[in-house]
Parts: sequence; C-alpha cells; structure tokens
Amino acid sequence: MFAPAYLDHNATTPLDPGVLGAMLPYLRERYGNPSSRHEYGRAARAAIDTARSQVAAAVGAHPSEVVFTSGGSEANNLFIKGAAACLKPGSLAVSAIEHPCVREPAQDLKRLGWSLYEIGVDEEGRVRQTDFSAALAKKPSIVSVMLANNETGVLQDIPALAAQARAAKAWFHTDAVQALGKLAIDFRALNAAGVNALTLSAHKIHGPKGAAALVLDKRIELKPLISGGGQERNLRSGTENVAAIVGFGAACELAAARLAADAARLAELRARLEEGLAGLGARVFSRNAPRLPNTTFFALGGIDGETLVAQLDRAGFACASGSACSSVSPEPSHTLLAMGVEAAMAKGALRVSLGRANTEEDVARFLRTLDETVRKLKGLAAVAA
Amino acid sequence: MFAPAYLDHNATTPLDPGVLGAMLPYLRERYGNPSSRHEYGRAARAAIDTARSQVAAAVGAHPSEVVFTSGGSEANNLFIKGAAACLKPGSLAVSAIEHPCVREPAQDLKRLGWSLYEIGVDEEGRVRQTDFSAALAKKPSIVSVMLANNETGVLQDIPALAAQARAAKAWFHTDAVQALGKLAIDFRALNAAGVNALTLSAHKIHGPKGAAALVLDKRIELKPLISGGGQERNLRSGTENVAAIVGFGAACELAAARLAADAARLAELRARLEEGLAGLGARVFSRNAPRLPNTTFFALGGIDGETLVAQLDRAGFACASGSACSSVSPEPSHTLLAMGVEAAMAKGALRVSLGRANTEEDVARFLRTLDETVRKLKGLAAVAA
Repeated sequence: MFAPAYLDHNATTPLDPGVLGAMLPYLRERYGNPSSRHEYGRAARAAIDTARSQVAAAVGAHPSEVVFTSGGSEANNLFIKGAAACLKPGSLAVSAIEHPCVREPAQDLKRLGWSLYEIGVDEEGRVRQTDFSAALAKKPSIVSVMLANNETGVLQDIPALAAQARAAKAWFHTDAVQALGKLAIDFRALNAAGVNALTLSAHKIHGPKGAAALVLDKRIELKPLISGGGQERNLRSGTENVAAIVGFGAACELAAARLAADAARLAELRARLEEGLAGLGARVFSRNAPRLPNTTFFALGGIDGETLVAQLDRAGFACASGSACSSVSPEPSHTLLAMGVEAAMAKGALRVSLGRANTEEDVARFLRTLDETVRKLKGLAAVAA
Repeated sequence: MFAPAYLDHNATTPLDPGVLGAMLPYLRERYGNPSSRHEYGRAARAAIDTARSQVAAAVGAHPSEVVFTSGGSEANNLFIKGAAACLKPGSLAVSAIEHPCVREPAQDLKRLGWSLYEIGVDEEGRVRQTDFSAALAKKPSIVSVMLANNETGVLQDIPALAAQARAAKAWFHTDAVQALGKLAIDFRALNAAGVNALTLSAHKIHGPKGAAALVLDKRIELKPLISGGGQERNLRSGTENVAAIVGFGAACELAAARLAADAARLAELRARLEEGLAGLGARVFSRNAPRLPNTTFFALGGIDGETLVAQLDRAGFACASGSACSSVSPEPSHTLLAMGVEAAMAKGALRVSLGRANTEEDVARFLRTLDETVRKLKGLAAVAA
C-alpha cells in the first residue's frame, strides 16, 4: 500500500499500536454495558474508572471532574449550550479564532437572544488585551478562549485571561484539544486561576476517534445535551463507548510519558522546516508568538493553498490548507482573517502539523517537493499569462 | 478466564469478529480525518459512504436519509430536541414505556414550557388506542412511540399509529434500537405510512459502541445538538468515528443476512425457556403480545429481581433486572408499572435477552440454576421468618 507522509497531525493522529492493544479486549471478550449489574458490566465499569483516572492524571484534575463525551465538538457544545441553558439569556464572549465547534454554538446562542462579543486578536493571533477588556465590560456570563489554535498553533495566556474573567464573574472555558499532548496542562492550577472547564480529545493524541472529555469545575451547573439513562453524573447519557474511553486513558498516559521528549524533537524538526520555508520565500504566520511545537502555518505568495494541498497529495504528502473539520467549505481561514491577513494571502495558506512518526528525512523531502511543486505551478501560471 | 453465559443482549451485544475485522484497518493504517483533502482523508470518507449505504440498505432507506450519531441516546435526543428547536413550544406525546433517552428529552421540553402527554399502554404493554386518540386530540407537533420495548420486547403497530399521527399533522418518530436485527424494518414503507424518523444503534446488533443513526425524512427540519464543522449535513458536527461507523455498516449487513435464521432460532430457544419458566411458576410479562423473538421478561412472586440478578451472576449467568441503561436507579421498571403490574411484582422482574451465541444447553442450565437459586432464596426467607 502506498503510504504518503502524514503531516496533518492537528486534523487527527494515527492510533498508537499500544493504545489499540489496550482497547482490543473491550472490542472482544469484555463487551459488557457498564450499566449492567453482572460480571461483564462490572469489567466495563472498572475500565472506565481506570481511564477516568488516567485522563485526570494527564491534566492534573480529579477523576470526578472528567465528563466523557463522544468528541471534542460535543464537549465544547456541552459547555457552551449546557451552561447557557442554566442561565438567563445574557452576553457571552468567544475569541475570533475559535474552532467552529465553539463559534457555532456561540452563534446558536445569539440566535436564541444572547448577545455575542467576538474577541479580536493581534497580527500574531494573540488575544488583544484591549479587546478582551472590552468584552468583559459587556458583563458576559460565559467566556471561551482556546488554549492553542488548531491552524497557527498559537498559545494564549489562559491563566491571565481566566483571572480577569473570574474578576468579572464570568464562567471561563478553554478548548485545549490541540494543546493536549503537546504541552503540559495543569487543570488544578488553571482552575485556581479562574478556568472552570477545558476540553480534551483522544484522537489528537494518538488515541481513538469517539472519546473526549470536558474537565469541569464541579461548582458549575450544566444541563446535558443528551439526557436519558443518567450516565456521566447525568451530564451525558448514553451507553459509554468503553473501548474508545479505554483508549483515551491509555493515550493520555502515553502522551504524559512522552511529552517532554516529543515536544523537543518536534520543535527541532519544525525549526528545520521553517528554515527551509524561509529559503523558499514563505511567510510563516505567527512565527514570533508562543506556539505549539509541531505546527507551521505558512503561505507562498500567489499560490492557492487548495491547489498546493492537492499537488502535494499526489506527490505523497498529506497536509492541510484550512482546519480539517471546516475544510468542507473552501473559505479562507477565519483565523488568518482575524489576524488581519489579506484574503488573497490567506487563500494560499498551508498547514504542516508534525507528529511522532515524522523524521528529518520527511521534512527534507517535503521541502524539496514543495519547491518543485511551486516552480511547476508558477511555470504554469507564467504560460497561462 | 471465567466467561459467564451472556443472556443480556438487549443491554449490549458482543462485537462480531467479522465486524471487528472490518473495523481494524480504520484503527490502524486508515486513520485519516474524513474532512481532510488528501489520501488518508479520502479513504476515511469513502468508508463512511459505504457504511451509510449498508445502514440504509438494512432498513430500506436512502443513504442520504442516514444521519450518523455517537449512539441511540444521542439520536433520540437529536430528533426530539432538534425538532422542538424548530417549532414554537406546543405539545408533544410519547408513550409511557419509552426508554429514558426518549422520556428525559420529553421531560426537558416540558421544563421549557411544552405540554407533555404520556400515552398509556394496556396490561400487555401495547399502546391503548383510546389513549393514543386522546393524545392526538391535544394536537401534538411531535409524537414518539418505540417500535419494540427494551424490557418486554413488545412491538407496537407503528404504521397504524404513524398514519393517525400524520392525519393529526404531527411529526412521528420511532425508537427502533431494539427492533433492528431482530425483525425486518422497512423505512420506505414506514415513511409512506407516516413515520418521519427512526433511531438505530450498532452495539445492539453485534456492532461497536459509539455508532448509531437517526434515519430521517428529509422534509423534517431539525436543529443540531452539536454544531461546528458541519458534518452529517450540518445535523451532527464533530470528526466522525470512522471505525465505529464502518463497524455499524458491517453489522447491518450481517444482521440483514442472518435476520430470518437468527429470529427463528431465537424464537425456538425462547419457547423452551418460557416453557421451563412456566414450570417454575413464573409470570411472563406480555406473553400474549407480539414480541421480539429473543426477549423474556418475567417474575417469580416474592423474589427480588436485583437479588436474583446478583445470585445468577455468581452462578455464571449474566442477565438484567431493569433496563441496563437505567439500572443505576433500582426503581421498579416503569414499563411494568405503566402496564399496571403491582410494584411488588415489578420489583421481582428479571429479563433474559437471548443472542446468536446462546444454545439450548445455556437455556437448560439457566433453568436449572434459576430453580436452585429460587429454592435457596425461598429457604433463606423461610429461615428468616
């Protein structure tokens, strides 16, 4: 089988073979429903308890603060809509660079009569303090700012923002899906600073699709999106996806163990990549901001990002133009537009997100292929002109 | 490993090894995000398309009518809350014997100002026509009646009920989670009769936990519970659980192929079981109603169901007292109470739900063990008295 080099780890990651190994018994003989009161049910329940402890440990939370969901989108929706359902319609604020699964729930609340403030970012993609202050002046009851952006990899100063939100009596949520496994997360410290909830997802850290969590300060009251059998402390009904949850726990343990080594190695690979990109005349977005170690978002003037992704795909490299989940719509990246990047430049954006299996050779080959592809595309453009 | 006889297939089923085989490539090398525009993404997208066709084919629907969700609870919530969000608060009607993941969303709407009518059932657990007419007289905009009950296995005459609901201009939904794989379902015919949506789930048909579907008449407008990247025609955002969806498709194909043979064999096993139970003086609930072929819900006067489940578990038999998903609360079965069974008798209820792997020997051993267990419990009770 032809296996292109995978450079799209912010979209999803390969399932770690050890994680799959941990899941397999729950896809075979340990198939019970965790709510069943017999041997099969108890085995499944015990596995969920273990996974809950593993996920909690990876982010310095208490197991009872972990609410399992089917994915990061569900967890983000659960916090925003679930908190809103406990409150009178008022005001909420989310950053202009959130993932669609935070932006859309915020828009849904707007349609229900909430007033929505979109917090602006500077040209590096960091939340503008003046704009954050303006947002808080609107007295929002809910504020959501992502820890790390999925496209640029830019980190926000979440403790500082959360502290201000707490002073303004807002509930503060952060989408930490892209941060997990790439930098250390300490929910106890974040919670002390003012973070009430954070979202994690398994499939971004070499775990399976189908498991994620909302880590939730128990003082926050939420209404469930999915009601019924009362699972997950009544916050998320439905038979638990036992195997996926087990895999999430195992992936968290692995990510915690490998964090320091992985981050250092990926940062080094990324530095090589960005040196090469500079040589090709690329503009690397947010290069001077604190970023995830694995992510490079860049553009080569005059080349369309979608075309480039398609050409690179044929040449054996899997990367992304926009964020994977919203790439059904070929609009320029809303993150870049919010950073003030011109639409023409934003349309040329390409994201490379490195992961465990990537090597120096992958990066070198990618740079050579990119160079050839760009020359070819420019040649075609010259002929056409 | 000690493997008790599994007699709890209405709670969940073992994953079929062939279904797991179909899933494994998507837990290994085919790990792409279906929204990604490269080889890995396309392979995942193609797998989802195939699974959508398989699920549609199993119930006589068009692939475009299948909306994948993470589970049956989510699909039921999606229909009820999603339809309500498109309507002005009005009236809805659900049967008194629905699963909690229909009852609770209905209660949620009640708290939002909807008026809720609970449709009563007769002593066999079938919807009472007089009560159904009374429900429709309230002009409900949403009606939900399950196809087959999870505890008694009783079937409702869905085409007849749906036709009346349509005449009353209500949207009609049926929870077909327990029916799938145990009897033939034809969405085209049901839709013609007036059914606008039905819910299916993979893990009840030897597929994986984590995949389910709402099969939806496209004339019905729903608001999503989970908004974001716009997956599933904007009705269910979030990265698709590719492996689980692939397994759902494979399990549907297998269930369709085995339906006739499985149903006949299980009906025969169940007849032996119920003969034996009659000999032990058990009362089999809904015995004279049309039922799923695999389900027996019964009670032995004076014996507590929870105690019996625990004793049988120790003796090597996995069965249920109430419905698995709600067995966190040891209340007597709401299905039996709705049928007018006295609370004392309802507390003694035990459910045996047979499946593919069960044999005549399992049934014979179960009957012997049940007899011994009951004698022992009655003996203890006599000593205590």
